[in-house]
Amino acid sequence: MRAALRNPAKDFVRYYLRSGVLARHAAALAGALLASAAGAASLPDSESVATQLRDAAMAGHDIAYNWVSELTTRFGPRPAGFDNEHAAADWAAGRLKALGFANVRIEPFPITAWRRGSESAQLLTPISQPLVIAALGESPPTPPQGVEAEVALFPTLEALKQAAPGSLSGKIAMITQRMVRAQDGAGYVAAVPGRVDGPHEAALRGASAFLLRSVGTDDHRIAHTGTTRYHEGRVEIPAFALSNPDADQIERLAARGESVRVRLLSTASYVQGAHSQNVIAEVPGRERPQEVVLLGAHLDSWDQGTGAIDDGTGTAIIVAAAKLIHDLPQRPRRTVRVVLFGSEEIAQPQPPGGAFGGHAYAERHKAELADHVLTGESDLGTDRIYEVALPKAVLGGEFAQRVLRVLTPIGVLLAARPPEDAGTDVGPSVEAGVPAFLLSQDAMRYFDIHHTADDTLDKVDRPQLGQNVAAWAALTWLAADSTVDFRAAPP
Amino acid sequence: MRAALRNPAKDFVRYYLRSGVLARHAAALAGALLASAAGAASLPDSESVATQLRDAAMAGHDIAYNWVSELTTRFGPRPAGFDNEHAAADWAAGRLKALGFANVRIEPFPITAWRRGSESAQLLTPISQPLVIAALGESPPTPPQGVEAEVALFPTLEALKQAAPGSLSGKIAMITQRMVRAQDGAGYVAAVPGRVDGPHEAALRGASAFLLRSVGTDDHRIAHTGTTRYHEGRVEIPAFALSNPDADQIERLAARGESVRVRLLSTASYVQGAHSQNVIAEVPGRERPQEVVLLGAHLDSWDQGTGAIDDGTGTAIIVAAAKLIHDLPQRPRRTVRVVLFGSEEIAQPQPPGGAFGGHAYAERHKAELADHVLTGESDLGTDRIYEVALPKAVLGGEFAQRVLRVLTPIGVLLAARPPEDAGTDVGPSVEAGVPAFLLSQDAMRYFDIHHTADDTLDKVDRPQLGQNVAAWAALTWLAADSTVDFRAAPP
Repeated sequence: MRAALRNPAKDFVRYYLRSGVLARHAAALAGALLASAAGAASLPDSESVATQLRDAAMAGHDIAYNWVSELTTRFGPRPAGFDNEHAAADWAAGRLKALGFANVRIEPFPITAWRRGSESAQLLTPISQPLVIAALGESPPTPPQGVEAEVALFPTLEALKQAAPGSLSGKIAMITQRMVRAQDGAGYVAAVPGRVDGPHEAALRGASAFLLRSVGTDDHRIAHTGTTRYHEGRVEIPAFALSNPDADQIERLAARGESVRVRLLSTASYVQGAHSQNVIAEVPGRERPQEVVLLGAHLDSWDQGTGAIDDGTGTAIIVAAAKLIHDLPQRPRRTVRVVLFGSEEIAQPQPPGGAFGGHAYAERHKAELADHVLTGESDLGTDRIYEVALPKAVLGGEFAQRVLRVLTPIGVLLAARPPEDAGTDVGPSVEAGVPAFLLSQDAMRYFDIHHTADDTLDKVDRPQLGQNVAAWAALTWLAADSTVDFRAAPP
Repeated sequence: MRAALRNPAKDFVRYYLRSGVLARHAAALAGALLASAAGAASLPDSESVATQLRDAAMAGHDIAYNWVSELTTRFGPRPAGFDNEHAAADWAAGRLKALGFANVRIEPFPITAWRRGSESAQLLTPISQPLVIAALGESPPTPPQGVEAEVALFPTLEALKQAAPGSLSGKIAMITQRMVRAQDGAGYVAAVPGRVDGPHEAALRGASAFLLRSVGTDDHRIAHTGTTRYHEGRVEIPAFALSNPDADQIERLAARGESVRVRLLSTASYVQGAHSQNVIAEVPGRERPQEVVLLGAHLDSWDQGTGAIDDGTGTAIIVAAAKLIHDLPQRPRRTVRVVLFGSEEIAQPQPPGGAFGGHAYAERHKAELADHVLTGESDLGTDRIYEVALPKAVLGGEFAQRVLRVLTPIGVLLAARPPEDAGTDVGPSVEAGVPAFLLSQDAMRYFDIHHTADDTLDKVDRPQLGQNVAAWAALTWLAADSTVDFRAAPP
């Protein structure tokens, strides 16, 4: 996922069961539910199918894991606009056809790509020590000899903004804010503005480069990259994330009253005229094929890891959920469309400046968006879903109750509010009026790994991946097999 | 710690209490012990002092943590023979004097140093992906254009040794053995021969370079360096450790039947005519000052981390233990000597080839070794001590019972056997006949961090560090304040 973060609301009811007991609870609760449903009146057919989909996914299947394993093993890092991303898209389209999906196609769009070069950092005074850094996405190179300067520390972006114009001339500005671990990722929302806007604010005040304590919750010598923002078509100064232990070291030295000097080097570059692509596949609806439930995730990744949890598992979850629906004896009423977006991670020098895959989709499919009945995006890793947020139109109604009956047994609560932010890729479609749902993943572990070299296949938790597929398959089926108007005003 | 590993014996009684309950147990058991002792005959005065030392350390003090914090913050990485190591030794000597120790001195000795250069690795086929590697210590540079070749995989060093002469010509040999996590570090003992002897065995069969799955238990994109062995004064081919996820990726690609080609680059170099040093300090004995209880740890570190747990905490533990003894109203009967060894991590091209600091000490102090009554070394991190091993001469006697009475309340068991290996630094003295004890640390977490860039101050667990100081202070006192002959045949 990029800077946008889904549902930082803090007032929902928390789910305290340990994920380790979910499976047993699921079995027990599912049994009780079925028994009570059987004892009561007729179980709605559509709900029964959703329950079957859920249980099939929970029982374990290999679609999702095999997808993310092959994607990361065969194509490795997939930075937008480069060969690995293109090859992964070709492979994905082929695999979607082989899985039986309809209307599989690749939709290319132009981008400016960004290539990490050689990069290094060295503490020069008061001691000599190599530092672990990662250039921020879209950050320009340093001069060939590097940037060497004293570091000026700021606890937050707000504190940096208080510095007087010119006061950082000849210095490297550094924001030391530490990301807070939180289940809903609220700590990311709080810290990420430093990454997005810090370089520009530092440049405005004369800084020659920018350093940021990684927006990440781990304690490893691995830096968390991520995009920064273009201003008038450029990022003004070289910008880097430092690993948490390296930021600690600089803070301790500064606290001793030492002047801390650092040398930074990067040969990053831009590639004009590159392209990325969205990959699309469908399970056509049996009654209202023009009505679309849109599932999104992104196929590109940052360049240092292999994009296993960001967002290989997201693509695996929506593909596996749609495949389980595809394999049913009966198709849903509406079409289920899977979009594997390209170029989610990197910003663009020209407006709209955001995730280009999502914009490219919303632009190209503008005429169809009025018939997009619901959309959701999976882009917060591989860990269990603990909450579902639904559009305001259906909160408190029968559809929400049905969702709850199917998802509560696998540990999913109903959010009291609709989603505040549905995700980067589907965002432009949502802005164009498409209603959104959100299946919130537990983000406690996600930001240890997010945007780092550590984002590799071994981090994928298979039981939790299965629970994600279960929730996505069941909810997608319920929405696609219904005639509910998610746009309507609430009852 | 280097290749040598203390006490891989597997038959001792295991301590199952979680460390979190140690403090409560300590208080309860200590109370019971004191009550029963008071109700019985006279408590030996020396044992009472040991109990006080133990409790003072367990109650928390800042000596050890401040030591390792200042050492790692001010001097960072301390590779043997370079400025940071020399400066750290000067600082340590000054600090030991300031703490009140007697006979503080620095004893330099010549070494050949090894300097990591630029290094990189790239997967070339079947996909393009940067790999995370670390040159093994003493490994020669590659040619300037790097080494580019197909990788030949071997599950173990033994399997590599089965390869025919010449069969690896034009290839890069790789050992894929995965280190097993074990409390006593036995997994390290099983895997490390691949690192120490793998490059030589690969070179004998014509390989152009050597790769090793890191000897480490973590799953991060961080490689574990460590020394390899010189043969006839040189390491024949460039040798590198791969991070565990990178080794996984190569194994998965090979399992798909793909030919895996890699490019390796290193500009490592040797520095002839360098020097390292041992730093010595004492608490002189009141009755038998010529008799020495020798406590060892090492001040040098690998170059990518800051040597916090290898072996900053070891030096902190023995200094803090000796300082608590120094601060008592009465000195012990025998002298307590602290040695902070230099150049423990790197091998030397000429015999003795081992840890040069330990050899330099044993050589220089040869005439005193007959009066070294007991020695021990702290070099397995910062986590709690769960077992004490004593020389055969005192097993089953009153001294062992006294040790057990003092250490059992803080979670330390008595090993059934004497130490098999007392450590790299005190090893040469032990070979010369000095009896050794071993305070075994819980190594479950140690090899996640060992020999990596991740070895930084934030990994130090203060409560467990305090428990180490408690055990070292109490045992050292009991040995130094006694007249026990640890060399004598058992009763």
